[in-house]
Parts: sequence; C-alpha cells; structure tokens
Amino acid sequence: MEPNNQQAYDRGSTIFSPDGRLYQVEYAREAVERGGPTVGVTTEDSVVFASYGNARSSLVVPESIEKLRDIDGQLGIATAGHVADGRRLVEYGRRFAHQEQLRYDEQPGVETVSKALADFVQESTQVGGTRPFGAAVLVGGFVETPRLYGVDPSGTPTEWAATAIGKDSGDIRESLEAEYETGLDEHSGLKVAVRALASEDRELTSETLDVAVTRESGFEPFGSEKQETLLEETEF
Amino acid sequence: MEPNNQQAYDRGSTIFSPDGRLYQVEYAREAVERGGPTVGVTTEDSVVFASYGNARSSLVVPESIEKLRDIDGQLGIATAGHVADGRRLVEYGRRFAHQEQLRYDEQPGVETVSKALADFVQESTQVGGTRPFGAAVLVGGFVETPRLYGVDPSGTPTEWAATAIGKDSGDIRESLEAEYETGLDEHSGLKVAVRALASEDRELTSETLDVAVTRESGFEPFGSEKQETLLEETEF
Amino acid sequence: MEPNNQQAYDRGSTIFSPDGRLYQVEYAREAVERGGPTVGVTTEDSVVFASYGNARSSLVVPESIEKLRDIDGQLGIATAGHVADGRRLVEYGRRFAHQEQLRYDEQPGVETVSKALADFVQESTQVGGTRPFGAAVLVGGFVETPRLYGVDPSGTPTEWAATAIGKDSGDIRESLEAEYETGLDEHSGLKVAVRALASEDRELTSETLDVAVTRESGFEPFGSEKQETLLEETEF
Amino acid sequence: MEPNNQQAYDRGSTIFSPDGRLYQVEYAREAVERGGPTVGVTTEDSVVFASYGNARSSLVVPESIEKLRDIDGQLGIATAGHVADGRRLVEYGRRFAHQEQLRYDEQPGVETVSKALADFVQESTQVGGTRPFGAAVLVGGFVETPRLYGVDPSGTPTEWAATAIGKDSGDIRESLEAEYETGLDEHSGLKVAVRALASEDRELTSETLDVAVTRESGFEPFGSEKQETLLEETEF
Amino acid sequence: MEPNNQQAYDRGSTIFSPDGRLYQVEYAREAVERGGPTVGVTTEDSVVFASYGNARSSLVVPESIEKLRDIDGQLGIATAGHVADGRRLVEYGRRFAHQEQLRYDEQPGVETVSKALADFVQESTQVGGTRPFGAAVLVGGFVETPRLYGVDPSGTPTEWAATAIGKDSGDIRESLEAEYETGLDEHSGLKVAVRALASEDRELTSETLDVAVTRESGFEPFGSEKQETLLEETEF
Amino acid sequence: MEPNNQQAYDRGSTIFSPDGRLYQVEYAREAVERGGPTVGVTTEDSVVFASYGNARSSLVVPESIEKLRDIDGQLGIATAGHVADGRRLVEYGRRFAHQEQLRYDEQPGVETVSKALADFVQESTQVGGTRPFGAAVLVGGFVETPRLYGVDPSGTPTEWAATAIGKDSGDIRESLEAEYETGLDEHSGLKVAVRALASEDRELTSETLDVAVTRESGFEPFGSEKQETLLEETEF
Amino acid sequence: MEPNNQQAYDRGSTIFSPDGRLYQVEYAREAVERGGPTVGVTTEDSVVFASYGNARSSLVVPESIEKLRDIDGQLGIATAGHVADGRRLVEYGRRFAHQEQLRYDEQPGVETVSKALADFVQESTQVGGTRPFGAAVLVGGFVETPRLYGVDPSGTPTEWAATAIGKDSGDIRESLEAEYETGLDEHSGLKVAVRALASEDRELTSETLDVAVTRESGFEPFGSEKQETLLEETEF
Repeated sequence: MEPNNQQAYDRGSTIFSPDGRLYQVEYAREAVERGGPTVGVTTEDSVVFASYGNARSSLVVPESIEKLRDIDGQLGIATAGHVADGRRLVEYGRRFAHQEQLRYDEQPGVETVSKALADFVQESTQVGGTRPFGAAVLVGGFVETPRLYGVDPSGTPTEWAATAIGKDSGDIRESLEAEYETGLDEHSGLKVAVRALASEDRELTSETLDVAVTRESGFEPFGSEKQETLLEETEF
Repeated sequence: MEPNNQQAYDRGSTIFSPDGRLYQVEYAREAVERGGPTVGVTTEDSVVFASYGNARSSLVVPESIEKLRDIDGQLGIATAGHVADGRRLVEYGRRFAHQEQLRYDEQPGVETVSKALADFVQESTQVGGTRPFGAAVLVGGFVETPRLYGVDPSGTPTEWAATAIGKDSGDIRESLEAEYETGLDEHSGLKVAVRALASEDRELTSETLDVAVTRESGFEPFGSEKQETLLEETEF
Repeated sequence: MEPNNQQAYDRGSTIFSPDGRLYQVEYAREAVERGGPTVGVTTEDSVVFASYGNARSSLVVPESIEKLRDIDGQLGIATAGHVADGRRLVEYGRRFAHQEQLRYDEQPGVETVSKALADFVQESTQVGGTRPFGAAVLVGGFVETPRLYGVDPSGTPTEWAATAIGKDSGDIRESLEAEYETGLDEHSGLKVAVRALASEDRELTSETLDVAVTRESGFEPFGSEKQETLLEETEF
Repeated sequence: MEPNNQQAYDRGSTIFSPDGRLYQVEYAREAVERGGPTVGVTTEDSVVFASYGNARSSLVVPESIEKLRDIDGQLGIATAGHVADGRRLVEYGRRFAHQEQLRYDEQPGVETVSKALADFVQESTQVGGTRPFGAAVLVGGFVETPRLYGVDPSGTPTEWAATAIGKDSGDIRESLEAEYETGLDEHSGLKVAVRALASEDRELTSETLDVAVTRESGFEPFGSEKQETLLEETEF
Repeated sequence: MEPNNQQAYDRGSTIFSPDGRLYQVEYAREAVERGGPTVGVTTEDSVVFASYGNARSSLVVPESIEKLRDIDGQLGIATAGHVADGRRLVEYGRRFAHQEQLRYDEQPGVETVSKALADFVQESTQVGGTRPFGAAVLVGGFVETPRLYGVDPSGTPTEWAATAIGKDSGDIRESLEAEYETGLDEHSGLKVAVRALASEDRELTSETLDVAVTRESGFEPFGSEKQETLLEETEF
Repeated sequence: MEPNNQQAYDRGSTIFSPDGRLYQVEYAREAVERGGPTVGVTTEDSVVFASYGNARSSLVVPESIEKLRDIDGQLGIATAGHVADGRRLVEYGRRFAHQEQLRYDEQPGVETVSKALADFVQESTQVGGTRPFGAAVLVGGFVETPRLYGVDPSGTPTEWAATAIGKDSGDIRESLEAEYETGLDEHSGLKVAVRALASEDRELTSETLDVAVTRESGFEPFGSEKQETLLEETEF
Repeated sequence: MEPNNQQAYDRGSTIFSPDGRLYQVEYAREAVERGGPTVGVTTEDSVVFASYGNARSSLVVPESIEKLRDIDGQLGIATAGHVADGRRLVEYGRRFAHQEQLRYDEQPGVETVSKALADFVQESTQVGGTRPFGAAVLVGGFVETPRLYGVDPSGTPTEWAATAIGKDSGDIRESLEAEYETGLDEHSGLKVAVRALASEDRELTSETLDVAVTRESGFEPFGSEKQETLLEETEF
C-alpha cells in the first residue's frame, strides 16, 4: 500500500485499514519502542526484572523515575514507552489489585492483574474518544508459583518464562531465548537478565541499570550497591 | 468501483457505500483472515477443535496464548483474527454464560451464547463511537446434543456441522466438506479436523497445533503428548 | 447530478441532497437488493412465505440460516439484505411482541408489530450516531384475518396482499400481480409464491427454497420433504 | 453564489450560509416537492382533504398507504414528502393529542396540535445530531369551528382557508385562490379541492385519489365508491 | 480578508476568525435582514408596533402569520427573520413570562423578559451542537412605564425609545430618529411608526400592514378597519 | 510561520500550534480589541471607571447599553469586546456573588469574584464544545480596601492599581502609567481616568462617556450632568 | 518526516504519529518554554523557589501575578507556561490538598499532591474533548523531609534535588547541576537558585525576581526588601 493510502486509515483507533490493520495501535507500539527496555525473567522461586534507562541528570531523585515498581508490596510491575501512559497503567493495576484484595481478602495473582490491565488497554483501542496507551507492561510475581506476563498496546496478555519490552525488545528476547533455562536459581536469572539487557552495546552502570526481584516474601528493589556487585559478578 | 471511490465510504462502520456495502465490516473480515485458523467439527457425542498458530518463542508459556478455551468448563470457544478483540469476545461470552447460569440455574446452550455474541458484535457495526470486532468466533459444546456455531464480524451467527475460521478458512472448509460425515465418532472427527487444518502446506507439530474436545462431561484441552499421538495416528 | 456531487451528500443519513434525497437510505436499499428474495402471499386463511437462498455449504445446519422465522409462534417474519441487520430487526420485533403480550395479555397483530419495526427503522435514518438498517422486513400472520406488511429501510410500512423483498423484488412483484387473486386457498397461494420466486431463472430446489405458512393455529416451517412435494406439484 | 460555494454551507442544518439561508431546510422542502400533493379546504361545517398518489401496485392494501388519516377520530392529518418522516410526524401528532386529551379531558384543537408539530419540526432544524423532516403536514378539523393548518419543514405553522402541500403545491394553490369562496358548503368544497388537484394534467381516478372529510361528528375517509361519485359530479 | 479565508472561519458558531469576528452570528443577522421589518415606538402611555409583510395569499388566515403577538395579554412581542426561529423565541418568552408570573405572582417587566431572551440567544452562539437563531426580537409593554427592547442574534439586549428590526431596519431607524419626540401621544406614535415603515417605497395597505398597541390595560392588535383608518389619517 | 500554516491550528480552542500558541484565544483577544475601551483606577477610598463608546442613536436608552454596572450594589464590573459575551460574564459574576452572599452572609471581595470569573473563562478555552469568550472584564470595588482586577479571554486574573481593557488598551495603559500615583483622591482619580481615555484623539462628550465610582458605601453611576461637570473640570 | 506529514498527526491529543509521538503534548511543552522560568532547590531544611518574570507594568499589583504560591500554607507550588492553565493546575492542587486534609486530618505530602496533579494532566492528553495543559508545575515542601517534584505537560511526575521549568530550563538545570550540593543550608540554596536563574543574561532585579521559601514552619514569600538583600549577597 502506498504511504498516502496508509494515512487514510491511521488517524483513529476506531478504523480498520483495507487489509485489516489498526494503525493507531501499531503507532502506539512505536511509542513503546521509544522507551528504554526492561527484561523480566522467572526463576525457580522469584521473578527478576532488569531495566535500562539513559543516564539521568544528577539532580533527579532516582526513586521517582524507577521503572520497576511493586503492587501491594508483592507483585512487580514495569512499563516501557510513553512514561505518563505507563504510570497510568501502573496506577490502574494498583487500584485493581487493592480492590481485589479488599473483595476477596487475598493477594490477587499475576494472571488476574495482567488480564485486568489487558481489558483496560483493549478498550482504549476500540471505543472512540480516547487513544491507545503508548506503553507496554510487564507484571511478575510469586503467588503460589513464579509467573510473568506482558501486555502490549493492543491489549493482548501473554505469559512468558522470560521476555523484554521497550527499545530493541526483539533482539533482547532472542538473547534470552539462547540463554534461558527452566529452573534457574535467582542469581543465574539475574545474570541472564543483565546479559540480555547489555546486548546492542548498551552500557550498563549502576546509573543506567535498575534491578528488582519479587519473591514469595515480597518485592525487593536493588540499591546502587547490590546492582554494582551484580554487574561485577556478571560475565559479559 | 475505483479504489479512490471505495475510500470515500470505508472510514466508518456507520456508512453504506453506494452499492450497499459496509467496508469497515469487510476490512474487519480481513483482520480475521490475518489470524491463524481454527477448525471445529461436531461428532456423535462431542465437538472437537483444532487450531494452528505460528511457531512461538520458546519463552512463551503456551497456555497463555491458547486459542481454544472453555466457557464455564462446558462449552468450548475459539477466536481468529485480532487477538485482543478475540479475548474481549471470549470474556463477553463467559460473562454472559455466567449470568445465564445464575439466572436460570442451568448451563446455557451453544445457540444462546452464540446469539448473544452475535448481538454484541452487530451493535459494534451499526452504532457510532466504536469499530467492528476484528475477530471471528467459534462456539461449540454438548448440551443435550453436540452443536457448533460461528459468528463473523458482521454479527451473523451460523450453525455448522463442521467449519473453520481464520486464514484460509475457505480452503479448509472445502476440505471439511469433502471429508465430513454425519455421526463421526470422536476419534474420526479429530482426524478430519487435523487433516483439514493441514491443507495449504501448513506444517502441524505439537508446537503449532492446539487440540481440544468438549463433551457432555466437559471441556478437555489436549496436552502436548495427546496431540503428538493424534498427529501420528492421522494419515495425511 | 454529477457523481462527484452525489458524493458530497451521501456520507451520513442526517444529510439531504439538494434535490431532497437521503442517499444513505437509498444505499441501504441497495444492501437489501444484495440479499436473496422472499415472497409473502396472503390466502383466505393464512399467509405463506417462500424464500430463495444460494446453495449453501453442505456443512451448514439449514435451520440456523433460515430466513423464515416466527414471532411468539404465531406471526411469521422474514428479512432480506445485510443478514446481521435483519437478525437485529427480528430480535426487535420479537422483544416488542413479547412486551405487548405481557402488557395486554393478547397476541399483538401484524400491523402493530410492523409499525413498531417501522418506527425503529425510521429513527435510524434521522438521528446521528447510527446508520440505517441494510435490511427489509416482511411480517405476516393470521390474527382475526390474514395480513402481510413490508417495512423498507426508510422505515415505511406498507400492507400487501402479496409482495416480495430482496434481489429482483420488482420483477417478482410483477409476476405476483399477474397471478394473484383474492381469496386464494393456501395451496394455490403456495404455488403462486413459488412460481413468482422462480422467475428470473432462479433454480428452486429443496436446498435453495424455504417455505413456511402461518395460520390462526400458528407458524409452520416446511421441512425438506414438504418443500419437494410442493415443487413437484407446482407447474412452472 | 457559485454552486461550489453553496456546497460549503449545505451539509448540516446547524449552519447558516453567508446570505442567511439554511440550505438543509431548503433541501428538505425539495423532499416535500417529491411527494404527491394533498389539498385541504375548509367549508362552512367541515374540512375536506383530497390527495393524489401515483397508481399503486394492485397488491397494495390501499388503507395502509392512505395519506389522509385521523387523530383521535376527530382531526384529519395529511403529509407530503418522505413517507417515513411523514409517518413519524403523524405519530407525534397522535401521541401529543392523546396526552392533551388525558390531561385536559377535552379534544385538543387544530391550532394546538399544529403548533406542537411545528415546535417539534423546528427543533430538528436547529439542534445538531439530527436532520430536518423531509415532510410537510396539513392538520384540519372542526373543534368549535373548521380550521386548517399547514406546517412546513422549517417548522412554521400557517393557518389557511384552503391550501396544498407536495408536488406542484404552488400551482394548485393558485387554482384554489381562483375558486375558493368563504362559506362553501361541503359538497362545493369537495369539488373545489378535486378540481385544484386535477390541474397540471394529473389524472384523477378512484385509484389515484384519496378523499376524506372531517366534521364536528368526526373523520370520514371516502371509500372508492364515494370517490367515483364525486369525480363524476365534478366538472373539470 | 479574501473570501476563501472567510470561509475558513464561518462554519460554526464556536469559532472566532483571526480578526475576532463570529461569522455565523453575522450570517444570522443576514437571515434577519431577509424578513419583513417591524417598527416599535414608545409613546407616553403605550408602545406601538407596526409591521410590514409581503402581500399574502388570499387563502392565508392573517391571524396565523401575524408578526405582532402578546405575552400573557400584556407585553407585545415581534420577530423578524427566519419565521420558525422567531416563533421559538416567542414561545420561549411566553413560557418564561408564565413561569415568572407563577413564581412571583406579578406581571414580569419588559426588561426581565428581554434579558431572559438575550441569555437564551447568546448561549446558542457559544455552545456547540446548535446554531444561532436567525431572528431578532422586539419586546414592548407598559409595566409601570412604557418600555421597548430589541434582542439581536448575538444575544445583546438594547432598550430603545423607538427602533426597527428586519429588512432595511437601518434606514427605517434613521427615519425614526428624524421624527421621534419624547412624550408622543399614542396617535402620533402610530403615525411616526407607519411613516417610518413606509420609507424605501414600501407600499402599505391593510393587507401588508400589521399594527398593534400595548397599554397598561393590555395588548390590542388592530383589525383591518382600524389599520385602514390609520393609513388614511397618516400624511406620507 | 506561513499564514496557511497558522490556519491549520486556529479552528478550535482545544488545539496548540507547533510553537505552543492557542490561536482561538488570541482571536478572542482581537474581539476584545474591537470593543470600546474602559479604564479603571483605584483611589484612596474608591475605584473609578470611565468608559468610551461610539456616539449612539438618539433613540437608544443609554442605561440599557451602559458598560459600567454593579454587582449586588457594591462591586463595579465592566466588559469590553463582543457585547453579548460580556453580558454573560456579568451575569455569571452576579450570580456567583449572590450565591457567595447567601452562603457566607457577607459581601464577596473583588478577588473572589474575579477569580471565579477567571476559572469560568479558562474552562471555555480548554474543553471542547464551546468557544472562548470574546470579552475582557474589569472588576473593582471597596471591600475593606479598594481593589481592581482584570480578566482576559485566556482566563488570567491580574490585579491592577489602574488599567484599561478594549480598543487601544495598550496606549491607554501607558498614559495611566505616566499619570497614576498611589493614594490619589477620588476626584484626581477621575481626572486621570478621563485623560487616559481621551488619548488617541477619542472625543469625550457626555454621549460617548460613561463614568461610575464604587465606594465602600456602594456603586454610583454618574448621570449626564455629573459627567459634563467632570469633563469641564478635567484639563486635557 | 516531512513537515506536511507532521501536520497530519498533530491536531488532536488522541492521535499517535507513525513514529509513536504525541505532537499536541510536544506543542504544549513549547507553551511551557514560552513562560518565564522558575527554579526550585531543596536545602537541608527547606525548599527554595526563585522565579523570573519580565518587568511588568508599574500598575500591576505584583502579588496578583506571583508565580510562587502556597498550598494550605505549607507546600509551595509554581507553574510556567500558559498562565491561565497554570492557575487551573494550582487550583486543582489546592482543592486536592484540602480534600486530603479533611479526609485524613493531616498535611498531604509533596509526592501525593504531585502525583494527583500528574494524573489530572495525563488524562487531558488521552481523552478526547479537551487539550493538554500548556503549563508545567513545581511542587515543593517540607513534610518530614524537604522534597521537590516537577510535573510536565505529558503528566509525568519527577522528583528532583533541584530543577527548573519554563524558558531555558535546560540551560538553567545545567547550571544547577554544576553548583548544587546535597545538604546545602537555606542561604546557600537561595544563592544557587538565583545564580542559576541569572544565566542566559537574565537581569535579576527585585521587579523581575520572585523568591519564596517553604519550611516545616510554612511558606514564606520574600518581600521586595528581602529579595534585594539576597541579590546583593549573591556573587554572580
């Protein structure tokens, strides 16, 4: 199709192109590709996350722009893409989890939260008066067993043993496919995640890297020190 | 009609073209054609489903992207096309079935659920502020007798002895027409379904194939092993 | 008017053209013309319907695509055109009749139901945010006396002794005008209907033909056998 | 103004052209001109209506397409133009009259009903989300005295001694102006109406003509026989 | 500004042009200029109105198209421009006055009613989904003292000793400025009004002229006879 | 930016231009510049207003078009620009002040009223379905101390010792800057206001000038006589 | 991308461009760049703000256009960009803080208020019918510890040790990065803020500078005198 034809069908998320595509959803995927990547890896008793961001101003309080966050202290959630959209999805996930907690008096699982996020995202791609979310989400956690879900801008939830979202996520996932094995212990999982993130000449330092682990006992973001130790221990 | 004329009438589902066509609905059918095919076959005491998907990343947890799902443990439901739209239809079907169950205290039938889905889909093609669903649905099950319905993006429900949705569904249905006989036993039905799906040089392996059977006793998704046995037992 | 001028006024049902036409309603009539025809004929104590559809896949369960349906077991209703739109009108008619039944505790008449359908259809041609229905409707029945109504996409109800909707309806109606007589007995009415439907070289077989009769005693769809007998008894 | 300039202001009823015109309302008047004409004449103790329609199919039940109808058995109402729009106005008038009857326990007058219709029509020309009605209305009756009102697509009500709506209404009104006299008896009024309708070479027969009279005693539609007698008695 | 630039800003009443104009309001003023003029003049103990309309069909009942009407028997109201819009404003004024009457149990004044009309009209020029009113209004009456207000399509109320609305209102007002004196008696006021209306070669006859006076004792429309006498007594 | 580029961003108040401007708000400022100017000056115990308007028809009742009005007898309010929009803002201010009075049982201050007006105006520049107000507002009064606020079409409130709105407001303000001194007595303040208004060759007469003073004791509009005396006493 | 392509995607905040950008949000950032800059710096026991504005008319009451304001007497808030939008955000922050205070009976923290503002701003960038805010916000305060947040027009909240918003904010932030040290005392923090603001040849005087400090004990705006002293004490 000629570019000028594409333009005829790409102005609203409520229009299909003649070949059955939703261009606004595809453009939202481009917004995801503009954001720094995050890797998630399930290990035998945890889910580990590693995230890469450009070196920031020394004046920024790092905690405020962390991409790895927790939901109710238990599940981990990360987003890539348009930052403000990602925040709104995190807020949505937290509010949803909190309500589930109140209603059923137990920690909602990774699947439940991920599918609620997926429903919320899909609706933004079909109903008029709004645009899709320019952000993808990873949700991981250990509720009975370690699980990891990704939700893309079309609103499709997919469960992964390990995956990546954001810039170069395709290449990073290939690297994960080569290295990942079932039943990794946490330390090996962390090293797999970091090595995958380092592909494409990304320079990992304690400034550009965020690491967090979520276990049955809860969510632990790594501090600067633990991240540096991990970088030293990882063979690139 | 010249292509530039077609463009004048294909931007919204609330516009007829001069020859009485609804282009957005036809484009939604194209979205269905972009999705991997699923076959449904009624047998004497079950409905069998077989679904083909591209080989996936080894990191994906296959269960999370299964196209063959159950409604209330009894009816089977499958979608083809835009995945997130398909999920929304499955969710709608489940919620509808659950409400019927609560209201009448009995398992809703295949026809009831299919027609509720068809109403929901038709509305999306006529009322402004939304787009059609880029997904088709198969609903099958044994409630008193085995029945199988398809719902297309225009919102038309059709009952079939056997049919297919998704990529190459026309060719697959021709293959079914040639092979299908009334009163097949379940094992023969499974082989008919798999052979039809294998047409057009699709290479069926336990990675690309999903099989499920729904009987009076409930919905059974086949595991990897049972699928391999079935592939071995089928003469191509 | 030049075609490019017509285009200036045919994008929404809420716009008149300079010569006072509603193009979207006219295009919806084209959608009706794309659907297989149905004939309705009043006889002395019944209304008979005969409907023609393309030969279908042998896998389709014919009952699911029947164009001749009942409302509350008593009135017959048929549609031609965009199938999903037709279904919605049938559903609307059924729900309306059911509510009337509950409210007044008696079978609503053909005129009452037809005019309710006409109101519903007209509104879709005047109010924004929706499109016209791409379907025409026939409603017939014996409530005190046999009556038959047609409703077109503009929302106009017309009562007929005999008429047709759908592809070639104009030619079929001419054939009915030539053959129809007041006070036909049911069997003659059936033959008149079938002969009119057979005009324009339509080949009638028990696969392509649907016949139903609605009498004071209720709605009777003909089975395959009765249809074949009728075809044999009719002189073409 | 150049035609292409006119087009800039004629797509919605909520836009004035630079010279202060509402084109959509003018186009709705064109829709009225496309409908067969109806004449109304007040006489000393009645209002008579005569309406011309194209020869119809012999299969149509004439009552169902009569243009002359009653409201509550007392007032007469006729429309010209887009038939389905006319029906909606008749329904509105009936519902309005019925509510007035219930509220005040007396027959609402011609003026009251006509002005309610005018308000309803005017609103459709000013508020977004709808189009004007492509139909004009005549309302006549004897409540204390014989009165006759016309309402045009702009929503303006006008009282007349005698008038016409629909195709060639201008010429017909000229003919009425020449022949009408105050205090006509009913029979003379009928002949004046029929002669005016016959102008412009319209061929009046009992098939193309509808006649009705509304008196203090109520609304009387003429049957075929009375119409033929009238045609015979009228000197053309 | 070039005409094609003007077109860029004149399609909706919710858009300013670069030089701060609201073209739709200006076009609505053109609609006012298309309507026959009405003059209002305050005298020492009354407000007199004189209105000019084209010679009408002899069949029209003049009362039904009178431009001079009363509100609650006390205030006089007249409109010029798009007739149906004018009627709606009269209806609004009447309903408003009636509600005030009920609420405060006293005749609302000219200013109160005029400002309510102005608010209603202004809103139509700022909020989307509607168009301005293509009509101007005069409201006059004697509540404690004689007062006369005009409301234009922008929704601005202005009080006048004497003024005109409608076609040639500028010229007529100049004529009033030359002739008007404070404290005119009613008969002189009537002659001033009629002479001003007669400017621009308008031929005043009892068919084209409407006159009414509103005094403390109430609203009095002049009949044909009184109008003829007035015309005879006026020196042109 | 080329003019044709500007046009791409100036049709709605909900669109920023690429350089971050809101053209519809800027065009609304042009509407303000089209209105006659008003000056406001705070003195030691009052706020004085002086307003210039074109010589009006001798038939206009001057009070009805006064630009200087009071709110609850205490605060003064003036507008410049599109007159009907200005009126709506005055009405809004009055209604707001009245409600505050009822709620807190004390005279609301100048700041409170001005900020409520600013909020109301800002909303019209951000939310769809309406246009900005083409009017600026001055609010002044003595509640504890003399204060004067201006609100522009963007909805920004600014407090001034003295300022002007409307045509040539920039030049007038320069003149005020040169002459104004803190702690002026009322008479000096009046002369400063009048001299500033007279700049740009505006000819001030008791017909073109409106003057009002608002003191702790309330709002006093000057009559013709007092205005003439003031003009005589002012050295130009 | 060619400029004319950019235009295809920059008219509404609900549309992504093909490369995943939201142009309306980027244009809103340009609006922020048009506003005078404000610097915020956290010190060991306070947050200091310094703001630069063009020399204003001597008639403006400076307090009314202060960019440094308090929320509930405790937190400081500043905006840059479209002034009326900034005011609306300040109002929103105040109302939110007030409600939190009522609900939990304690001073809400800087983070809580900033994130509420961020949610409010993000929504304006995704939902139709509104435009983004053309303003950025700084929120600072001492609730347990000194904290400072910035919120940009995309709705992203970021915590800073020190930062700037508005014109040349990038350059000013570089200057802050060079000078800022953790644990500055308040006086040093003030001098850092003022020096950073003075970069780019901005001439700071007590007319163009606004300074405020917010401590545990509350918000203190500096008066003219304190500002002059600070300017004298600062080495540039």
